[in-house]
Amino acid sequence: MRGAILHAPGDVRFEERDDPTIVEPTDAIIRMSATCVCGSDLWDYRGINKVREAAPTGHEYCGIVEEVGSDVRTIKPGQFVIGSFFASDGTCPHCRAGYQTACANRVPMAVLGAQAEALRVPLADGTLVATPEVPDEAMLPHLLAASDVLGTGWFAAVAAGVLPGSTVAVVGDGAVGLLGVLAAKELGAERVIAMSRHEPRQKLATEFGATHIVTERGDDGVARIEDLTDGIGADAVLECVGTDEAMAQAIKSVRPGGGVGFVGVPHGVNLDARQMFYSIVRLQGGPAPVRRFLPELIDLIWTGRIEPGKVFDLELPLSEVAEGYAAMDERRAIKAFLRP
Amino acid sequence: MRGAILHAPGDVRFEERDDPTIVEPTDAIIRMSATCVCGSDLWDYRGINKVREAAPTGHEYCGIVEEVGSDVRTIKPGQFVIGSFFASDGTCPHCRAGYQTACANRVPMAVLGAQAEALRVPLADGTLVATPEVPDEAMLPHLLAASDVLGTGWFAAVAAGVLPGSTVAVVGDGAVGLLGVLAAKELGAERVIAMSRHEPRQKLATEFGATHIVTERGDDGVARIEDLTDGIGADAVLECVGTDEAMAQAIKSVRPGGGVGFVGVPHGVNLDARQMFYSIVRLQGGPAPVRRFLPELIDLIWTGRIEPGKVFDLELPLSEVAEGYAAMDERRAIKAFLRP
Repeated sequence: MRGAILHAPGDVRFEERDDPTIVEPTDAIIRMSATCVCGSDLWDYRGINKVREAAPTGHEYCGIVEEVGSDVRTIKPGQFVIGSFFASDGTCPHCRAGYQTACANRVPMAVLGAQAEALRVPLADGTLVATPEVPDEAMLPHLLAASDVLGTGWFAAVAAGVLPGSTVAVVGDGAVGLLGVLAAKELGAERVIAMSRHEPRQKLATEFGATHIVTERGDDGVARIEDLTDGIGADAVLECVGTDEAMAQAIKSVRPGGGVGFVGVPHGVNLDARQMFYSIVRLQGGPAPVRRFLPELIDLIWTGRIEPGKVFDLELPLSEVAEGYAAMDERRAIKAFLRP
Repeated sequence: MRGAILHAPGDVRFEERDDPTIVEPTDAIIRMSATCVCGSDLWDYRGINKVREAAPTGHEYCGIVEEVGSDVRTIKPGQFVIGSFFASDGTCPHCRAGYQTACANRVPMAVLGAQAEALRVPLADGTLVATPEVPDEAMLPHLLAASDVLGTGWFAAVAAGVLPGSTVAVVGDGAVGLLGVLAAKELGAERVIAMSRHEPRQKLATEFGATHIVTERGDDGVARIEDLTDGIGADAVLECVGTDEAMAQAIKSVRPGGGVGFVGVPHGVNLDARQMFYSIVRLQGGPAPVRRFLPELIDLIWTGRIEPGKVFDLELPLSEVAEGYAAMDERRAIKAFLRP
């Protein structure tokens, strides 16, 4: 089969790779229906994370089960399934507490390389969620979004403590930030302030439920949030970038006792303990336990209530995966959808 | 009247000060029944916070109302009242949200100096809570504890997300940490692990509800918590010190998705954003909104359910306030109770 290999920063190639096979009896093999490029893939692509050797890449996936190992009980060949960026057993104390990304037996899917024609999924019963039937083509982008970016935006909103009636600010207008807007709206937020200076992204944020757009950044952005909230601050802020500037903006925008959910992998973020103390902010972030939310998110998609796949504004054949990376790196695309 | 003045690090004197008078129509004047020395007073006393000029000191108080301003509606002369270390109006959005220490009109009581025979309390209706009747002498220590340390330990437990059945670890065996143990127990924790190496404090922690004592610190302490929780980590950790070592110990002791409540004013604390991300810890701290909890805490004390005043292991006449500071500084006493 063929799949993507990251050879060096800026150098992704579509190449022949070994066909995946059942290694553990809890594995499943899926034939990929769709995969995509994640904002977090760009940390490697841009060389911000060290790239030590050529390696498979990609961690978002959905497809048809081809084969399962002898210990797989609930997942069956022929099912259409979605999983998250960590395989998880579903039975350890962390999984049972809803933090599957901390699973005692977790496997990072990026190592297995989901930007490929087929994929081995470890711990299939714990990891994969099947849809009611095999979906039609039009639903693929929405379901694929649930594999990471929708669930990650959703976790940002949950971690920030969004409640019915909340005033929410979202820092970051990438796919995760935009789907954080959608999540906040679905969780009942009354006002959702999207911070974006890019017109197409503003438009999508509005479609997803943003009631206000703030184009200012940094302290000017904080001042605008303050204006919009009568000097009180937002009840909840979603930090969906991972930079120091974005985190500072989030913490300064929240009301005393309000929550910040952060899902951008921190790069150079300094947390000021005194500032956090005196602002009484409640902070939670991390690798989103997308698996916790998957059944609910699939249901919202299946019934047509949400259309998270709108974040894909570039569709390419998987063979052109390199162009997907380049387009996102140069911000020509929000998110690239790849069809094998 | 007479009261304490901090002249310089290590130099507290009991001196003649002006009698407090009604300045604003929302003020009350109270005759002090009891006051005390706080662990946080030691930051100044030890010169860790800069002491710029001689100033009144102390922020914990309870006493009998002597006089009220013309706009005071609910508080009456003759009542026995308790307030917190920030005066708060009780009506602004932050007060209504239960974060009275972020009150738009807050006044730090330390500036007014509660280690004194009488005290002006601003925003009396918002700040003060009256007991059902004037209490007898034996109840004074318990009620005074509610002015800060009990409410602060309580907030640490609430911020850490202690729930019925939780396994809780408490870092810090000062008065706040010990009352954090009591709070965790009252909030329904099943197991409360007190981290202490001081025998009298271990004993008090056990009286307050600790089920386990851990004497190790740092990574050894973390390893003990891991042992006690089958490798999972505590559901909630209360950080009641404010040092970098204590915070690191707290964050490393909590399970993924668990909560850390921190109420020690941070001094030299470095928060590692990546570590916080990958541990998925939920962190909230700050100046405890003690006022939110006061009615409930007074009720628990009044009905004899809790005896937080046991943290006072030294009683002195107010005139010997300097010895109270010295005894706490040298860790000869957990907390010094001062009677005018």
